[in-house]
Amino acid sequence: MILIHTPSPKEVAAYLALFRAALPQQQFVSLEQLDQPEAVEYVITWGPPPALFAGLPKLKAVFALGAGVDKLLARDDLSPAAPIYRLLDGGMAPQMVEYVRFGVLSYQRHMDIYRRQQMAGVWKMLAPRLPGEVRVGVLGLGEIGRAVAQALAADGYQVSGWSRTPRQVPGVDCLFGDEGLDELLAGSDVLACVLPSTSETQGLLNASRLAALPEGAMLINAGRGDLLDEHALLYQLDNGHLRCAQLDVFASEPLPTGHRLWQHPAVTVTPHIAAITLRQQAVEQIAANLARLAAGQDGLGLVLRARGY
Amino acid sequence: MILIHTPSPKEVAAYLALFRAALPQQQFVSLEQLDQPEAVEYVITWGPPPALFAGLPKLKAVFALGAGVDKLLARDDLSPAAPIYRLLDGGMAPQMVEYVRFGVLSYQRHMDIYRRQQMAGVWKMLAPRLPGEVRVGVLGLGEIGRAVAQALAADGYQVSGWSRTPRQVPGVDCLFGDEGLDELLAGSDVLACVLPSTSETQGLLNASRLAALPEGAMLINAGRGDLLDEHALLYQLDNGHLRCAQLDVFASEPLPTGHRLWQHPAVTVTPHIAAITLRQQAVEQIAANLARLAAGQDGLGLVLRARGY
Repeated sequence: MILIHTPSPKEVAAYLALFRAALPQQQFVSLEQLDQPEAVEYVITWGPPPALFAGLPKLKAVFALGAGVDKLLARDDLSPAAPIYRLLDGGMAPQMVEYVRFGVLSYQRHMDIYRRQQMAGVWKMLAPRLPGEVRVGVLGLGEIGRAVAQALAADGYQVSGWSRTPRQVPGVDCLFGDEGLDELLAGSDVLACVLPSTSETQGLLNASRLAALPEGAMLINAGRGDLLDEHALLYQLDNGHLRCAQLDVFASEPLPTGHRLWQHPAVTVTPHIAAITLRQQAVEQIAANLARLAAGQDGLGLVLRARGY
Repeated sequence: MILIHTPSPKEVAAYLALFRAALPQQQFVSLEQLDQPEAVEYVITWGPPPALFAGLPKLKAVFALGAGVDKLLARDDLSPAAPIYRLLDGGMAPQMVEYVRFGVLSYQRHMDIYRRQQMAGVWKMLAPRLPGEVRVGVLGLGEIGRAVAQALAADGYQVSGWSRTPRQVPGVDCLFGDEGLDELLAGSDVLACVLPSTSETQGLLNASRLAALPEGAMLINAGRGDLLDEHALLYQLDNGHLRCAQLDVFASEPLPTGHRLWQHPAVTVTPHIAAITLRQQAVEQIAANLARLAAGQDGLGLVLRARGY
């Protein structure tokens, strides 16, 4: 038996229908339909309620309906013996490419400055800037980060990428480790973060690292809110060291009412929509993974607890 | 002797230096340096002052420092016998691709709606829309329009293109003539106009054509301001039939102080910067054209007066 749960009953209903169509021989249930917790072998979930896993004695594995699994790993009701599989893409990489490309285009073409000029009724052309004159640093070179870095390189930007361990991405200057991070920050007109939240990345974008960005740089954060010191960001925006920011994730979500980021003229706030799990693609990937496990093969997207993703 | 003139003395100085470096055997002068008007064979210009051409009896041809030549064609001091050559690209096509892509991305990813939500402090996810679910209509399939249409098709959008006469663009559904225009309008979630201003295109985007766009559509105008009925656009934005507009060109430029477009929440105003002539590329193209004419070949980018571009 496979339990499907997310905080939205409408979404659960949609997933139930899709999974039943994809794997008609399997039994899928919602939390409301669950009458035999001891029969549940797999859970497909996003945002499960507290203690959910504690009541499932036969749980073999959990499939996350997303790429970020920091909250799942932090739970104390989920045995470390139960493997977690995350979505490797689920249609998210192309969406992240679009989200970051929008921010980089806005920066390169001065669209944020033209918007402020418009609000002031000012008609003034700024000197054009070619893509090759804009240096973009991408933090995170997993499936999503690689797609972002390669797409921006194809757009003509000077792209560097950074990851914890060495990686190679064609057309992208790849850096790694603490030293690599310092080098990347100093040379990024736009810093685009798509890192997961792990014990090693939390607080990564702190005051000194934001100060290490070049004068007039932009920050795009579409990774996780706890990577960024929001007060340090506001400080650098207020003093003019950073030009603007496009933020999709926040230390607290929804972004609290009255938070200064809501009204800051240099900040674009989006409600965690940069890369949404696309149902059909998520279903296909998880169904394929269930088939692999049933056939005795390794599942794809296995989360390594030591690594944190 | 070749006269170089634009309204900016700084720009003229930059062009003089570049042209002298590119063609050292030729004599280039500014209007201020001109002491022998009867020796001028060619004029390289943008925004020439009234009656300039009347005082140049030996004028053989004019090279426009831009793609749009409507103002040059409307002058009465320029003999129809003197050919006008316009820039075929001059680095403008990639810039136009960026400008239109920014608008289309903004529409597809609801960035305009998220901005309004941000201003109201509202955290609300909207259903994602894939590029393949957005229909983009490109008006104009010259060098620039073709580049825009093909880039958007490569981004995954459903792209149609329209031109006065039949054209073929790989991956783009090409329509033409009055009937084709009606079909394109009815099927364009985003209408991107890069048409030149000619007697046939002036007023093209009138009240009835804007009303023919689908509910919730977006207009991008980066062609010429006189193609669009701005009052009809404001009417359709105010009544909610159209969702938003991104405008780079206006009936009167600079956009007059106090004009409603400046402050309209659904309108992005940019100061005619979508595609700026890049000096080095313009110099290379015009220098090559001068060499072609000197060798007795046809120049590229010859403007046909009957056609208007």
